[in-house]
Formats: sequence, structure tokens, C-alpha cells
Amino acid sequence: MPTRQQILLKTRPEGWVRPEHFELRESVIPSAQDGEVLIRNHWLSLDPYMRSRIAPEKSYAQGVEPGQLMVGATVGEVLESHSDTLAVGDWVLSASGWQTHATMPAKQVLKLDTDCVPASAYLGVIGMPGITAWTGLMTICEPKAGETVVVDAASGAVGSVVGQLAKGEGCRVVGIAGGAAKCDYVVNTLGFDACIDHRAENFKQQLAQAVPQGIDCLFENVGGEIFEALLTQMNPFSRIALCGMVSEFNRAPYGHHTIRSILINRIKLQGFIVSDKPQTWPAIREQLRARVLGGQLQFRESIAHGLENAPAAFVGMLKGENFGKQLVKLTP
Amino acid sequence: MPTRQQILLKTRPEGWVRPEHFELRESVIPSAQDGEVLIRNHWLSLDPYMRSRIAPEKSYAQGVEPGQLMVGATVGEVLESHSDTLAVGDWVLSASGWQTHATMPAKQVLKLDTDCVPASAYLGVIGMPGITAWTGLMTICEPKAGETVVVDAASGAVGSVVGQLAKGEGCRVVGIAGGAAKCDYVVNTLGFDACIDHRAENFKQQLAQAVPQGIDCLFENVGGEIFEALLTQMNPFSRIALCGMVSEFNRAPYGHHTIRSILINRIKLQGFIVSDKPQTWPAIREQLRARVLGGQLQFRESIAHGLENAPAAFVGMLKGENFGKQLVKLTP
Repeated sequence: MPTRQQILLKTRPEGWVRPEHFELRESVIPSAQDGEVLIRNHWLSLDPYMRSRIAPEKSYAQGVEPGQLMVGATVGEVLESHSDTLAVGDWVLSASGWQTHATMPAKQVLKLDTDCVPASAYLGVIGMPGITAWTGLMTICEPKAGETVVVDAASGAVGSVVGQLAKGEGCRVVGIAGGAAKCDYVVNTLGFDACIDHRAENFKQQLAQAVPQGIDCLFENVGGEIFEALLTQMNPFSRIALCGMVSEFNRAPYGHHTIRSILINRIKLQGFIVSDKPQTWPAIREQLRARVLGGQLQFRESIAHGLENAPAAFVGMLKGENFGKQLVKLTP
Repeated sequence: MPTRQQILLKTRPEGWVRPEHFELRESVIPSAQDGEVLIRNHWLSLDPYMRSRIAPEKSYAQGVEPGQLMVGATVGEVLESHSDTLAVGDWVLSASGWQTHATMPAKQVLKLDTDCVPASAYLGVIGMPGITAWTGLMTICEPKAGETVVVDAASGAVGSVVGQLAKGEGCRVVGIAGGAAKCDYVVNTLGFDACIDHRAENFKQQLAQAVPQGIDCLFENVGGEIFEALLTQMNPFSRIALCGMVSEFNRAPYGHHTIRSILINRIKLQGFIVSDKPQTWPAIREQLRARVLGGQLQFRESIAHGLENAPAAFVGMLKGENFGKQLVKLTP
């Protein structure tokens, strides 16, 4: 009987998540039934939202229990089909989790067009992260030409798309990233107007200098001290899309001291989760795809090799060690 | 030469504001010129926003400098008119500040209809506080019938209107107030479904019991620990109108530990200042006036007597010692 590798949650982390919180298992691949396909996964996406799925506290989605397969999006190839809609050899996107093979209903799988864009892009720039960037920027921030847009985790899968889209809207765009190499990439490859290293000792001073007209739109991925500092630079009637607070996952709840700025500056702060509006995805994906093909959206990937290395890559991503979209290549 | 009493800011408070931060002055009343009127003020409104005008830090409006007249809305009677639009004996609303008499351009003054509502109501239920309540509730919270609406400082000039309007929309309405007498008034006179004393030792437990379906709309006046607790009870896709954070004025910046709820629950949190949209005031005032005349809007006033007692009444209001709209009666 053919087998597959899977990674399960072993124990719920308190504080920093470590590779020991996961375990690798070998198991028999269930045979595909009527209407199902067997998929060989080539790419696994690692994303910050996974951290909240394994947290002890309530989040917006069903959590992963110890002993269960880790959730995640994958791109793979159909090995065997019992469905009229998919053929052997088709490339597909599915939410099959941290595993090398999956047996799934064909209707839960999206067939991909990989003629002009690489298959892995469906997990990044034209996938959930790119659609997240579009949704928060275009529907919550609603930037106007000439406004100043700031995004943190600017070199990441979401932040990089936010900034490039905002440049396309005619905005001044400032990124926040960790380290000189990421800041260099954000300015010189992605085309942001400026990027500030949040590790710099004079971060707040550099931030104030980079936004001489204040901030009109903030796309917030990080939370903690960075969000706290950004709030002090917001303009009257500015907008904040709250997408993530990744810096607050692995420690005691952070105390935010600058919330008063929301009142004084009449800010709209709105949390959002891109999966709330799946009906919007196809049209947004087409917009992103057109920009990738037109050269207006650059992207970069950090690739770990082998499912067994997914836990370490996941931990590294939460610490900002990745550079661009974090993927795991599951095939040689 | 006729004289008037005025109260000036003496020094900017750091921490708790005290009556000694103000000073009473006697001065000559300027004579009214062409287009101006001389007003005898009967009522001075005391409102929480005044605290931010005398704070050292930047706020949303021009601050009052030491030596300047304290800002505030007043209702009075025209003593002398050099304008075609106002006659001696007319009752008027103006932003004339903490003083017994004012000489002002007639175009900066609103003539009042006091046939069916008392003049003082133009400083409360059908004035700025009532319009504030309407604006935050109707344009930011947008409550739907059957939803749960919570408002803190519930017996106050703004909170009392918020809750009664929300009842009119068919909502379950829960107030937060300080002490048993206020809670009793909020439930038995204003008709809220429940009211919780934030001074109770088991406040959080009582709150959770009072909102078994969670909170859909929050009208936030207080900030600090109360706002922090309320955030933990918000529902997915709920809305918060951030109107004030009065508990945070007189101390070091408060650290908010539950901001993450905004992300997890996809909350819209929006700060607003009612004076940003003066063009909306007349229509809203008519809506409120109709409800007062129809008996759907009850209100209550706390009255201090004499301008010299305004500073103490102001400090008391910031400490929650008032019960309903805080006014100063300037005439016997």
C-alpha cells in the first residue's frame, strides 16, 4: 500500500513555538472514491495564520487539536482522478494540509493555469497572501493618489503586494522590515519610496522622517511596539487595515499605549480575514495575475526542502528569518 | 461700565485637574457693534471634551492656553441686538465660553425654539451630546433589530441617548455606569435591558452574563479597564464607535491588552468627533427633538449654581460625580 508523510500537531505551544511541537508520521494513502482525486503535493504554503490555529486561546477559525494534521494550502499534481472535472497531470490548489499526498473531493480543489505563472505563485502573490493584500488595501484603506501608505513586514508575501499595489495607486509608500537586506529589496526591487529597519535604535525618529506628511493608510501585519509607534504618526481621518499581529503571538498580551490616537485622529481601524469573502477571490486573483504578467508585481520566495523541514521553516518565518513568501518544496 | 464674570484657564493640569487650575475674573463687557448681539448666558454646558482642550498634549482641536477664556457652549438671552436676525429677548445657543455675558456676531449664534423643550435641552439631549450619540450609533455602529448594544457612562448626557435610541431600533441594550443609583435610573427610567456597575468586584462576570449573545455594537465613552473588558465580549463583525476615553485623561497612558480581539473578530473600531460634520446637525436635532416631544427620550440634568462653581462641577463630572447632563446655571 502506498504511503505518505504527514505532519501533525503534537502539543499546543505556550510562548514560542518550536519544532518539537510537531511530529512527522507515515501513513497509508486512502484510495480515491467516486468524485475524488489523489494529489501529489509539490508545494506547501507556510503562513502566519497557522500560529493562531495552534494557540490555546480562541481565534477566528477552528483550531488544530494535538494529534491532528496541520492545516495549510498546497499546490500539487493529480495522480489519479475519479472525477470528470480533473484529469491526471492537472495542477491543483487545495487546502490539504501539511502532507505529501491527499485524497480529496474534486469539488474542493481548484485547477490551476500554470502556463504563464509558476504553480507556487498560487500560494503567494496570486494566492491567499496576495488576495489578503488587495482586500485590506483596496476595501479598508482605500488609498488615494498622493496619500502616504505604510506597511510592516514589507518584504513578506502580503506586505510586498500591499506596497506595490499602493505604488500603482499613486501613493507614497513606506515599508517597515527587519534588517538592511530586506529594506534594500523593498526599495530597490519592489520600488517602495522608503523602508525602515525596525531593529534600528532610532526607529521612531527614522519613521517620523519617512512620513513627513503623516500616514493616511496603514496595513498592519505585526502589532506590538511597531504598531504602537505607527499609531502616533497617523493623520486625521486615516484608515488602518488590521491584518495580523504576528509579533504578539509568542508572549504575554502586549499593552498598547497609543490607542487614544484612534479617537483624536478619527481613525477607522478594521480587522479582517480574507477567507470571510471567498466570493471575491476569483476577480481579485485575475487583477493580481494581470499585474504579475505585466511586470508590476515582483515577488520572492523562501524555500525549505522536504516536509520534515516544515516545522523549522514555520518557526523561522514567525521570527522573520524568511525573505519573501515561505514555501516548502515537497518534491525533489 | 457693565461687567461680566469669566473663568480662565490658569495653568495646564498634569494628572488630575483641580479647581485651582482655573481663575475667576471680572471684566468690562465689550459693547456690541454692527451685526453683533449682547447675550446674557443662563446655562453653561460642561463636557468631557473640555479636558482635552486643556491638556498639554496635542488633541483634535485648538487648545486653551493659560490666561485664555475656557471654551464651552452656552444658552442665553439676547439683551441688546445690532442685527436684523435676532431680537432682544430671543433665546440663543452659542459657543461663548465660561462667562456670564458675551458679545458676538449674530451669525455665530443659533436662535432657539423653547416653546416645547426647555432651553437647557439644547446643551444636552437635543444639543451636542445628543447629536454625538446619534452620530456614533447610527453612522458607525449601525445597529440592527435584535443585536446587542452596549454603552458605558450610560446615565450621562451621551450614553443615555445612545441607549434609548438603540432601544428604539429594537436592540437589547446594556449600560455600564458607576454605582447602584445610576444603574437603577438607566434600567427603570431610561428603559435599558440591564445596567452593570463597573465598580462591582465581579464586574467582568456580570458583564459576560448581561451579554449572553455577545456585543454587536459598542458605544465607547470611557476607555481604560472598562473598554479592555468590553473588547473581550465583542462578536465577529461587530462595530465600535469610539467617542471618548474619559477615564484615561488623568493618568499615564493606559496599556490596552485586548486589542487582538479587533483582529480575531474583524471588528470595525472608528473614532469620531461630532463637530467634524456640522452640516448634519440640524436634521439630527430634529430627529432628537421629535423623540423628546414623543416621550421616547428621557433626560436628566445635574445643575451647579453660579459661574464660580463651574470648575468644581467640571472636576466632579470627570470623576463621574454628576448624574445626567452637567450644567451650570448662571442666573438665579
